[in-house]
Amino acid sequence: MTERVRRRGRRPAGEDTRATILEAAREEFALKGYAATSLRAVARRAGVDPALVHHYFDGKDDLFTATLDAPANPAALVGGILTESGSLEGVGERVVATFLGLWDDADAQDRLRGLLRNALEHEAALQAFREYLTADVLGRLGVLMPEAEAPLRTGLVGSQLIGLAVARYVVRLPGIADADPAALATAVGPTLQRYLSGPVH
Amino acid sequence: MTERVRRRGRRPAGEDTRATILEAAREEFALKGYAATSLRAVARRAGVDPALVHHYFDGKDDLFTATLDAPANPAALVGGILTESGSLEGVGERVVATFLGLWDDADAQDRLRGLLRNALEHEAALQAFREYLTADVLGRLGVLMPEAEAPLRTGLVGSQLIGLAVARYVVRLPGIADADPAALATAVGPTLQRYLSGPVH
Repeated sequence: MTERVRRRGRRPAGEDTRATILEAAREEFALKGYAATSLRAVARRAGVDPALVHHYFDGKDDLFTATLDAPANPAALVGGILTESGSLEGVGERVVATFLGLWDDADAQDRLRGLLRNALEHEAALQAFREYLTADVLGRLGVLMPEAEAPLRTGLVGSQLIGLAVARYVVRLPGIADADPAALATAVGPTLQRYLSGPVH
Repeated sequence: MTERVRRRGRRPAGEDTRATILEAAREEFALKGYAATSLRAVARRAGVDPALVHHYFDGKDDLFTATLDAPANPAALVGGILTESGSLEGVGERVVATFLGLWDDADAQDRLRGLLRNALEHEAALQAFREYLTADVLGRLGVLMPEAEAPLRTGLVGSQLIGLAVARYVVRLPGIADADPAALATAVGPTLQRYLSGPVH
């Protein structure tokens, strides 16, 4: 978060290189989707050394969310929660609270609506987003559970988080749009916890 | 459902009157939203007797979903489940199963995506949709619980159902898009039941 804010805040000499890499990444992701895009191919398209891509971005997930102009990289946030906790136990509430924290200013909410509009209009954008979500957000939760159950369980988590964001920031449903984030984390946390490690069959 | 399918299937003489009423309703809803629109005002705008509006449509909720070209009227379906059950006990799974049943063909899913796109582009459409959802879908669940808790509880229900539809039919998240509807009802039913009548604080 801090890193990205810092990058946005200044316009140093390297900003042109970063913009060139971002533009090349947008083209690669649009052409090949998320899964099949490599940082090496992005560097080649941008005409820069691969080391420069790694200098400006913390991996493919960070580069992808930067091309989306997303307010943060949910993959890194999920990774952070799991690294700290070491398991899926008791992470439900923290995941909800962290997720809601991503969109807590009006600018971030505008960008969320823009992302949704774009994904609904462009199948390639939707596919890349789905691959990112599957591989690097839900996938980081999935490796901590029995492999056969991971798609359903992590998909259920995704469904509740997507629904929470759409209900709160897009539809602005009364009772959700005006709820305290902590109250939502208390109410929705147990849902995520059951989807992650409780009975779902 | 059957009624609406029948209406679509034929083009009898009355079809012009129905189309005129629908057009007038679209204008009224766009101008005044859902809550402030009356069937009487729609009849006036269409230049027909109010009785004719009641002849073609089973109330404002039915008229509204018809203007959206929605595959069904969720308000009537929720009403049906509650009338049959008489209370909120044990309705979680049935609500999920019925909701998923609404979108079980490709045409309905196309229309769902069209609805979302339209709501994201037009604030008036979004507002009317929110009012319809609040008053006549979630509202029918809310009258069966303590009034102070209704907005949060029914909003939580809305968030999970919206998320399920977006994950399954829009994002097409693996594990959700390809899941058996009955398996999803089993997994998500307890979530809805807790939001309706279990601990959320």
